[in-house]
Amino acid sequence: MIRRILIANRGEIAVRIIRTCKEMNIETVAVYSTADKEALHVQLADYAVCIGKAKSADSYLNMKNILSAACMTGCDAIHPGFGFLSENAKFARLVQQCGLIFIGPSPDIIDKMGDKNHARQVMIKAGVPVIPGSKDILKTKEDALAMAESIGYPVLIKAANGGGGRGMRRADCAEEVMDAYETARAEAKVCFGDDAVYMEKFIVEPKHVEVQLMGDHFGNVLHLYERDCSCQRRNQKLLEEAQCHTLDANTRNHLLQDAVNACKAVGYDSVGTIEFLLDARGQYYFMEMNTRIQVEHTISEEITGIDLIKMQIRIAEHQKLHIKQEDIPCLGHAIECRINAENIKMNFAPSPGTIKFINFPQGRNVRVESAVYNGYQIPPFYDSMIAKIITFAPTRLECIKRMRIALEELIIEGVETNIEFQYLLLHHPTFVSGKYDTGFMETFIKELKEDGTII
Amino acid sequence: MIRRILIANRGEIAVRIIRTCKEMNIETVAVYSTADKEALHVQLADYAVCIGKAKSADSYLNMKNILSAACMTGCDAIHPGFGFLSENAKFARLVQQCGLIFIGPSPDIIDKMGDKNHARQVMIKAGVPVIPGSKDILKTKEDALAMAESIGYPVLIKAANGGGGRGMRRADCAEEVMDAYETARAEAKVCFGDDAVYMEKFIVEPKHVEVQLMGDHFGNVLHLYERDCSCQRRNQKLLEEAQCHTLDANTRNHLLQDAVNACKAVGYDSVGTIEFLLDARGQYYFMEMNTRIQVEHTISEEITGIDLIKMQIRIAEHQKLHIKQEDIPCLGHAIECRINAENIKMNFAPSPGTIKFINFPQGRNVRVESAVYNGYQIPPFYDSMIAKIITFAPTRLECIKRMRIALEELIIEGVETNIEFQYLLLHHPTFVSGKYDTGFMETFIKELKEDGTII
Repeated sequence: MIRRILIANRGEIAVRIIRTCKEMNIETVAVYSTADKEALHVQLADYAVCIGKAKSADSYLNMKNILSAACMTGCDAIHPGFGFLSENAKFARLVQQCGLIFIGPSPDIIDKMGDKNHARQVMIKAGVPVIPGSKDILKTKEDALAMAESIGYPVLIKAANGGGGRGMRRADCAEEVMDAYETARAEAKVCFGDDAVYMEKFIVEPKHVEVQLMGDHFGNVLHLYERDCSCQRRNQKLLEEAQCHTLDANTRNHLLQDAVNACKAVGYDSVGTIEFLLDARGQYYFMEMNTRIQVEHTISEEITGIDLIKMQIRIAEHQKLHIKQEDIPCLGHAIECRINAENIKMNFAPSPGTIKFINFPQGRNVRVESAVYNGYQIPPFYDSMIAKIITFAPTRLECIKRMRIALEELIIEGVETNIEFQYLLLHHPTFVSGKYDTGFMETFIKELKEDGTII
Repeated sequence: MIRRILIANRGEIAVRIIRTCKEMNIETVAVYSTADKEALHVQLADYAVCIGKAKSADSYLNMKNILSAACMTGCDAIHPGFGFLSENAKFARLVQQCGLIFIGPSPDIIDKMGDKNHARQVMIKAGVPVIPGSKDILKTKEDALAMAESIGYPVLIKAANGGGGRGMRRADCAEEVMDAYETARAEAKVCFGDDAVYMEKFIVEPKHVEVQLMGDHFGNVLHLYERDCSCQRRNQKLLEEAQCHTLDANTRNHLLQDAVNACKAVGYDSVGTIEFLLDARGQYYFMEMNTRIQVEHTISEEITGIDLIKMQIRIAEHQKLHIKQEDIPCLGHAIECRINAENIKMNFAPSPGTIKFINFPQGRNVRVESAVYNGYQIPPFYDSMIAKIITFAPTRLECIKRMRIALEELIIEGVETNIEFQYLLLHHPTFVSGKYDTGFMETFIKELKEDGTII
């Protein structure tokens, strides 16, 4: 049994973990950088240790200091939260080598799922649909054409050693493949010094749908339904909801079952998420697995009544999952809005500074997760997310309405925030319809710019 | 259908009503005294009207001004909240005479239930146990003795025109009846100018247990289980929980059924509460009916998932209760702590003033209902309750734990509060056992005084 946990994180997730630990009568050790002396997680934990300077590399990413703090304070486990070292297999191994429990999956699983190609192979074996194509290098135009014909259009030609959209070209027909192959190779050569390219199917107007899962050390795996995380700007999620409104029952059943099967195939032994792309026709494809707790885990908690941090700790203690899938009904709909200290009029630039006044929403089925308070100074060194507002209701429309009301009550002065942005988003007909995809946020921002509303 | 409601109240209940109205797409008109210009309910409502000076008599009790405000702003209904005019039949009638809907029971029912003797007779007719005895004047010592022998000891002799414990004497045997009769009469004469006394059974170490009910205009009545409100100081509730932990299933069933029957007998057509005294042997007696929403309605909402304000509005619109008793399961346990701005070291004297810093608890299944914020000035004119913290959990012990954690997070600076008092209460073995009665708070305060902890 775990008796004292070091939380290798900061902000709202550190606070949220502390709450569950208190409920479980587990003591907590907070760690903090010199910039976080006054942070809420430091005040709420039983003990607190300064682990270095403001920059993450010196503190929240400083494995040695974190491990020293854990040993020094007599912890028997480390919870990594999300971000920072949460998906660092090396860190997980070091934790174990120190004789401590890493609250997360086995380091080998982190490694395997972190390797995209390996993860893809595991999914294929488990019968989970993956994006058609391969990581094989296309040596000639003819190879490219043959591959395109076999997986069907549109296709995407991507730099093997690239990223960030460079060395990437879409092709919708044979003719375009020829062009795309050459231009992608040329760009890849220029950008990455390597003209190797490969091909995969281009998923048109996809939704980002992910399944929340938990598996124990005894082969039991349960899902907590799916989340729709398609409201993203530059791969940063802004608003999440559970469940996905547009998924039909049949597709959902397959998706959830595939996710459970994949988890079993991996031997997954913690709380985690499998992300999928869902196309307009209801076909879904494995994207990646997140081997950590996620920001948006809250909405899965709301619709199931299950405390995911508690489950994560119990599993780490090698306890068996004591519930069955049929004991996890979906109780309603939940939405999470991420409140960021950022200036939407300045291209969403972070807006650190002192919170001069804050009023959080209250009332029935409104959950707030935050680590900021009146007079709090948001340091410029970390993520700009300062609060999560979560609403729950029996139906999706009631839930949207409740979130709008919550955002009307939320007042933050002293720093710029995206509250108004979120509020407008919650009123957009496309969002309300539920029929939005990962391209929607770009359209929405364009609209806001065009009508001069806020950007 | 109601489209615009004037809320004839202030503070957290006004804010709480506004939230539900927003969810129902009903517009709200706040009213406020000159002392409440900066109040949260004024800021959150769609419209706000100043109705008079700070003193309640000039504003929140000023029927004429409130009715004028309602007519002037085109409201079609008035919600009275609790306290103030909420159980004033005259006000309810005036509201109706103005062509508006009073969101509460018919004025006649308010009248009837407000008359303790009448209410008692109604309950007797409905087969609900009442406190043995009668309101009949005891003309002689012999009458008193005969009455005592018939209802059984201990008994209480009370001034017919009294109150506040004066002209009240307990008697545990025939001999004591003789003494008590004389001293009660003498004291009644001195205090109230009338030596008339009557007798009722003295309920030993009772719990204050109340049943939350709702009835529509079509004779349908449903209960939302009971609340244990025995944590009282001078008849002021401090902490409430639902359900009552010590009630056995059989007694509970009878209690709930009796409450439903009583409501049906009354023809009750709104949301309301019947209060009972429950003695140590599990026998319960009707005390009174509250024909309004109560402060502690929140915990019944938490354990049932039902919005009582919404039900109240729907019923006022003459809608039928669309659910059945079996559709209202008890989902878990809920506790409410009332946070008062008061100085427990100064005999719980109100502590108005400016809130210099406030941090509310957050997280899973923690609900906050408040109308105060950073920099808010608590006026000295009204109730000292400034917030309600409500926690919910599957079990009572988890719920207690969650409340302790919530209170650890709750920080209020600038005024004195009872936070620490509540925190200590939540750790007291008698409270934790659930086996406390209405006398417990006095014992608890005495203990705190004796060990010098806080008082």
